[in-house]
Amino acid sequence: MLYLVGLGLNDEHDISLRGLEIVRRCEEVYLEAYTSVLTVPVARLEALYGRPVTVAERDFVESAIEPVLERARTAEIALLVVGDPFGATTHCDVLARAKALGVQTRVVHNASIMNAIGCCGVQLYRFGEAVSVPFFTDSWKPASFFDKLEANASLGLHSLLLVDIKTREPTLPSLARGRPVYLPPRFMTVRQAVGQVLEIAATRPGSGVGATSRAIGVARVGTESQVCVHGTLGELRSVDFGPPLHSLVLLGAITEAEGSGSSESDEEDQH
Amino acid sequence: MLYLVGLGLNDEHDISLRGLEIVRRCEEVYLEAYTSVLTVPVARLEALYGRPVTVAERDFVESAIEPVLERARTAEIALLVVGDPFGATTHCDVLARAKALGVQTRVVHNASIMNAIGCCGVQLYRFGEAVSVPFFTDSWKPASFFDKLEANASLGLHSLLLVDIKTREPTLPSLARGRPVYLPPRFMTVRQAVGQVLEIAATRPGSGVGATSRAIGVARVGTESQVCVHGTLGELRSVDFGPPLHSLVLLGAITEAEGSGSSESDEEDQH
Repeated sequence: MLYLVGLGLNDEHDISLRGLEIVRRCEEVYLEAYTSVLTVPVARLEALYGRPVTVAERDFVESAIEPVLERARTAEIALLVVGDPFGATTHCDVLARAKALGVQTRVVHNASIMNAIGCCGVQLYRFGEAVSVPFFTDSWKPASFFDKLEANASLGLHSLLLVDIKTREPTLPSLARGRPVYLPPRFMTVRQAVGQVLEIAATRPGSGVGATSRAIGVARVGTESQVCVHGTLGELRSVDFGPPLHSLVLLGAITEAEGSGSSESDEEDQH
Repeated sequence: MLYLVGLGLNDEHDISLRGLEIVRRCEEVYLEAYTSVLTVPVARLEALYGRPVTVAERDFVESAIEPVLERARTAEIALLVVGDPFGATTHCDVLARAKALGVQTRVVHNASIMNAIGCCGVQLYRFGEAVSVPFFTDSWKPASFFDKLEANASLGLHSLLLVDIKTREPTLPSLARGRPVYLPPRFMTVRQAVGQVLEIAATRPGSGVGATSRAIGVARVGTESQVCVHGTLGELRSVDFGPPLHSLVLLGAITEAEGSGSSESDEEDQH
């Protein structure tokens, strides 16, 4: 049996009782730690769960997980996932590959940014398509994410911008040598995301998205230090949201109910 | 302190460790049980949590919760919410009222249908606005939800249809007498939701939504008896999904990655 167990947003205490019961009886426990990250080191998970936890890097999950799936035919094995197991394509792929091998699977859901973003005071039902914002480079500045922002805005819908993280990025020279050396982890900030949005907006004067567009920047959703700041993109560009993870909501039309709710998000917020 | 604690999708074991630690130390514990429901009776929660749990009906939460909020100035009080606390406007309202009274609040997130619907094999990032489908009556058949389906479809996006539940609906005669008598709970089925979609579709021949539109019906997401069935609306109209809760996904354009993932949802599915 292969279990995909969502860990939620913050630390080792966000696992559900159901998830904990499963993890404690598993023979092998892996942690997928490149599509999102917890706020605590793996040792904290191991101490609470009473199991050694193997960190599964991207290349392992994407290319070398078959032997684990084979063992899951007869053994109980857990793959821990930050947030909810269906938050990243990677985990859907792992499930599909397990099923193709005839391995039984089970999913334990948890909170993820996709539903916890409701914390910022606007209605989840008023969000359009979620938008991933990749790190721009000098030579690569894809604008396709901006098309989605425009489409949502044209319907009066909010947009959740999921900002890029690079937890294990090889240097180009090391790749060329065939022996990857990894850069320190990078997490896109609200500021950087706003900067990239405004960079594209400057080339599309008719888009309706610009420095005066209203937005909410959030950081560390679901933790004690959660922050929600409401302002224009121009204003948010100069706000320091502190440590990762960050997200950004570009606001569409605000309903009356949201207006009363979101006003309390002007500053550091609930939680 | 007022805690809003998400319980997740299924039963008493879906609470997080963080949520359980909080509930066990609270002086008063309420369960909001009209915007969604668990699959187990309240006694099961009380046994595991070691606290009496008061079921909070709609009129209580909407009109009579102020004394509870007042006590939360000095006492630790928990309001348990099925799914995630931000899944329903009601809970945002409670938070806003607590804050207006100067009561400290804290939210413990959990899975809700808004992110767990990823279980049906399509990407969460490809969903447009979520759509609530109210029970039609002989004289009231609002079509506004259909406008949203059309808008999502025009962008190639999937739509999550959240179907109506009526957990405490007074009879009209009893309301007229001023002494409400309540009907048994009603939960809209996939069949009923499909029927209502097709009823509106029949009046809008150019909408692109009809009996041949592809969709996924789901029931009891996050439980052992979870079911996902993929088919046309015409096909799903004759499928019995069993006990509540049900939801429906109207599919937009399917990406290659989703195609490989969703094929395994043709029958009873993972969990």
